[in-house]
Amino acid sequence: MPKVTLGRYMWERFSIQSFLLMKGVPGDFNLQFLDAIFEVKGLKWVGNQNELNAAYAADGYARIKEVPGCLVTTHGVGELSALNGVAGAMSERVKMIHVVGQTTRAMQDNRMMIHHSIGDKPDHQQYNKASKGLRCAAAELWDVETAPAEIDRVLRECFLQSGPVYIFLPLDLSSEEVSADLLKRPIDLAPQINGPAQEKAISAIQEALAASKHPSVLVDALAHRFDAVPETRDLVSKMKVPFFSTNMGKGLVDETEETYVGLWNGEIGTPGVKETAQLSDLIVCVGYLPADTNSGGFSRKFDENKAIHINPFDVMVKGLVYPNIHIKSLLAALVEALPSNPKHSILKLELPPPRIPKDAEARHTTQSWLWPRFSQFLRPGDILIGETGTTVFGICDNPFPKNIRFQAQIYYGSIGWATPATLGAELARQELNGSQGRTILVTGDGSLAMTIQEVGTMIKAGLKPIIFVINNDGYTVERMIWGAQQAYNDIVPTSYSYLLPLFKHPSPSTSFHRAQSKAELEKILDLPQVKDPQNLQLVEVVVDKLDTAWRLGSQLAVRGEKQREYLTREGFVDTYGDWGLVDGGDVDVKWN
Amino acid sequence: MPKVTLGRYMWERFSIQSFLLMKGVPGDFNLQFLDAIFEVKGLKWVGNQNELNAAYAADGYARIKEVPGCLVTTHGVGELSALNGVAGAMSERVKMIHVVGQTTRAMQDNRMMIHHSIGDKPDHQQYNKASKGLRCAAAELWDVETAPAEIDRVLRECFLQSGPVYIFLPLDLSSEEVSADLLKRPIDLAPQINGPAQEKAISAIQEALAASKHPSVLVDALAHRFDAVPETRDLVSKMKVPFFSTNMGKGLVDETEETYVGLWNGEIGTPGVKETAQLSDLIVCVGYLPADTNSGGFSRKFDENKAIHINPFDVMVKGLVYPNIHIKSLLAALVEALPSNPKHSILKLELPPPRIPKDAEARHTTQSWLWPRFSQFLRPGDILIGETGTTVFGICDNPFPKNIRFQAQIYYGSIGWATPATLGAELARQELNGSQGRTILVTGDGSLAMTIQEVGTMIKAGLKPIIFVINNDGYTVERMIWGAQQAYNDIVPTSYSYLLPLFKHPSPSTSFHRAQSKAELEKILDLPQVKDPQNLQLVEVVVDKLDTAWRLGSQLAVRGEKQREYLTREGFVDTYGDWGLVDGGDVDVKWN
Repeated sequence: MPKVTLGRYMWERFSIQSFLLMKGVPGDFNLQFLDAIFEVKGLKWVGNQNELNAAYAADGYARIKEVPGCLVTTHGVGELSALNGVAGAMSERVKMIHVVGQTTRAMQDNRMMIHHSIGDKPDHQQYNKASKGLRCAAAELWDVETAPAEIDRVLRECFLQSGPVYIFLPLDLSSEEVSADLLKRPIDLAPQINGPAQEKAISAIQEALAASKHPSVLVDALAHRFDAVPETRDLVSKMKVPFFSTNMGKGLVDETEETYVGLWNGEIGTPGVKETAQLSDLIVCVGYLPADTNSGGFSRKFDENKAIHINPFDVMVKGLVYPNIHIKSLLAALVEALPSNPKHSILKLELPPPRIPKDAEARHTTQSWLWPRFSQFLRPGDILIGETGTTVFGICDNPFPKNIRFQAQIYYGSIGWATPATLGAELARQELNGSQGRTILVTGDGSLAMTIQEVGTMIKAGLKPIIFVINNDGYTVERMIWGAQQAYNDIVPTSYSYLLPLFKHPSPSTSFHRAQSKAELEKILDLPQVKDPQNLQLVEVVVDKLDTAWRLGSQLAVRGEKQREYLTREGFVDTYGDWGLVDGGDVDVKWN
Repeated sequence: MPKVTLGRYMWERFSIQSFLLMKGVPGDFNLQFLDAIFEVKGLKWVGNQNELNAAYAADGYARIKEVPGCLVTTHGVGELSALNGVAGAMSERVKMIHVVGQTTRAMQDNRMMIHHSIGDKPDHQQYNKASKGLRCAAAELWDVETAPAEIDRVLRECFLQSGPVYIFLPLDLSSEEVSADLLKRPIDLAPQINGPAQEKAISAIQEALAASKHPSVLVDALAHRFDAVPETRDLVSKMKVPFFSTNMGKGLVDETEETYVGLWNGEIGTPGVKETAQLSDLIVCVGYLPADTNSGGFSRKFDENKAIHINPFDVMVKGLVYPNIHIKSLLAALVEALPSNPKHSILKLELPPPRIPKDAEARHTTQSWLWPRFSQFLRPGDILIGETGTTVFGICDNPFPKNIRFQAQIYYGSIGWATPATLGAELARQELNGSQGRTILVTGDGSLAMTIQEVGTMIKAGLKPIIFVINNDGYTVERMIWGAQQAYNDIVPTSYSYLLPLFKHPSPSTSFHRAQSKAELEKILDLPQVKDPQNLQLVEVVVDKLDTAWRLGSQLAVRGEKQREYLTREGFVDTYGDWGLVDGGDVDVKWN
């Protein structure tokens, strides 16, 4: 009977869907089973500069490729370093496999004081306990008889629950052998569908829709995480009703569709959007994730009696829950069941004309100018990674061209995520599209500093993302919350022109660009190597430290008079006056 | 009755011993209580580039200043990012306070989907659970009435147990007020001494010493962690017997003392050392921490019936345990009780002459030449931080001048630690010594990459460490274990000359140095700005990727014939032939 090592079995299982990217940092408790990666077709090892970056990169890869990203770390030191990136995947429902190379079973049984341990009778499973609440499932491998099935089980959980899973693999166990025939056993990664439950939910949805005069759709992130973007697009297309996105759902359904109203961020959005939403008598929320940062600080309010929620595992119609469904299957069946010519067809909305920012005439780069200009730079097929902070608030405020894949960590909000996530996303883009499209990162100076070494990994791998760094001299988003001039919001001054040569970029002088004015940025955005990069491009955009996207100012100003006084006193730029119409005002919207 | 906010109370308590350094990254759940730091005398805020680096820096600070280092993070994202650095402090018994700014109590009670959370009914204490097994104590503050006493309690635990403690502070609680009179209440940070228990232990030690013909002392790390270095020095000085250090205890007692034999690393040490140890009929181990990496892979063997262990909280004499003591107090009393003229006085040992390495004549920088040369560069009063990997194995092999404070993370062994730890150590040096001494970091290219941005923090703060980076083109220590030529042991190629200008060093061209040969390194070590730096100096030392400290080669070779074959086949440099005398051989040592 042919045999394979358990390490090899594991990698082969990962490659069945040819879905995995290997990341991480080598360590003495994973080195020996890393070798097998190179023997397995469809897997690729990409070393990272540290383990947190590896987790972020696996996360970025999974979001674009829509299969799990994998990271491999060593017991304790690597395992814990990655934990914040794993927790981010848990919070944002991103598929991730974290393989931890552990000490041998004998070392564990004898509680040996092997390096990376704690105490004089160390429990080598101590670190495993730390991630217990931060993962969907874990295979704590110990017995070669049961290990293959355990590996299969957590792979399935990774897909079904869409989140991080762990595989703990003692070093000695990885080289034990299992029957190669086990590799022929299929892994079922598809969810089980409960037909009657699904039919019941669909009937309830149809009934509610039939009773509605002005339904609308709100598209959110979990549609993406549970692989239901095509079905969501079909739903929007077939319903032909006005639809909105959240910050996290932005771009999932093309914003060039004529029924797209805008990003509905509660009270803090483009004038006309929330007013349009309020005219709807039934809101169909697809994959809703109502975190503060995804709902204008909980200001997106609607009556649950006028809402349908299509969630990953249940449907709620006007407050009544229909359990045991799966979002992807349900949406597909719903689209099938809906009439081809809905009676509630909306062809055109009349929104108010765009507002003119107060600083429109400035020569220096203002955020009110930057973000709309930035949207123009995007091309269909681009991948856009936005960092938490000023950037995400700015990006979300402007419509995208067709087919932009936008990802940001808006709920978990761990700054530093975006740079390694771009590495993962760009690797995924190359695997999916080859020469098509571009991967664009927009980050801040404070965020970039946290994970800056991963720019080196991108250069080494010959990747060609375009990195925009908004240099506003520190943590501006924190300055706006508190301590505008406090030292704790300053960061280390950085001359970005040296970053590319530091990591041996092949053409650093023509690939680094610095814009101190609108005119300079216009020129840069027009350079052939920036528009169609052949290797990594870095664009530094210098903006004032007290300037920010109006949406961020407004989100804070909504906290009340005290915060508005603070913002004014400290001299933050108030783009439209009165902190971005947080009080609303009368906006005339027509719903034909 | 005068009042202070709880946030202010906390910082004031930290400053009582004027012992704290503030580190971390601002976040929206800690910003508001950070302001109070600037009002408290004796505290200093140093922002870091990310939270893991902040934890490492606090660790480095604490090791040199011998008071806790403090780091401040925000709920979830910052808290978890720092966790590996906290676990390192737990493993290595380093005093650390981790203040976590949490969401408000109302947000927690209502399980609100505030950013940085997980799920749709988030438990905001989820992250607190992750660090439970990795800390000595935690104050989970909730009630303003009990909070001041809780803060005091964990400060005490931090000192007594010598390890990391947590303070979880909900944002709204930090601004509630407590009586300022509470600040007058003393905090007792000294351990309680059980007089009779101590006397009993001392009698047993004296009795054993009296029965011994050839006692010796082994100095290890926990003497340092429990603030008993002066007492350990007094013990060695009064006993006048041969003494040894471990890797982790290296330099705690001056190696220039005439009774110093050498670093006893089990089978893997300078010839003559273990042979001398074996002649002893009673080994007094002070603060022993017998991890694999601190004991030549558990090869430092001795008979417990010929040993005394003076541990932090107990004494073991020939296998019998005497509990309820405290190492510092016991050592002081023991020194007092010992006779001034011990009968077992040893004046001189005759060790074999030093061996000649096989590559002694090479022009390029070899590791066999580098480490002894490096020891010569050290001056009394220097602080030396060594990174896990090739560096630590190399450094440990050579004697130091008087009064060198050497720190490395030899048990926990998290690579990347040393660079931020140098930031902390250099800040501590400046606070303690002012213009005296130097802080020297020796790290590898692979390790430096993990936390490289912290070089920027040092430059911004105007610190002046000397950083040696051993550039051996990747993870050489991992290459020696497995995969000599595998891609997973390569790192991102880096041109270090750009590192200083990247972070706006004031004189980058005269502060960066690159040595490709012994002669070049000699010249560099002789430059005035390197010998007596006025600002940060960076020295890149290029060595062959298959060369390494002989002690590391030997430590691996001791695993057996298979590993020795591997090392030979892959072409690693075998400094002395036959992988560093791992089989011992006959060495003649005289014990007069």
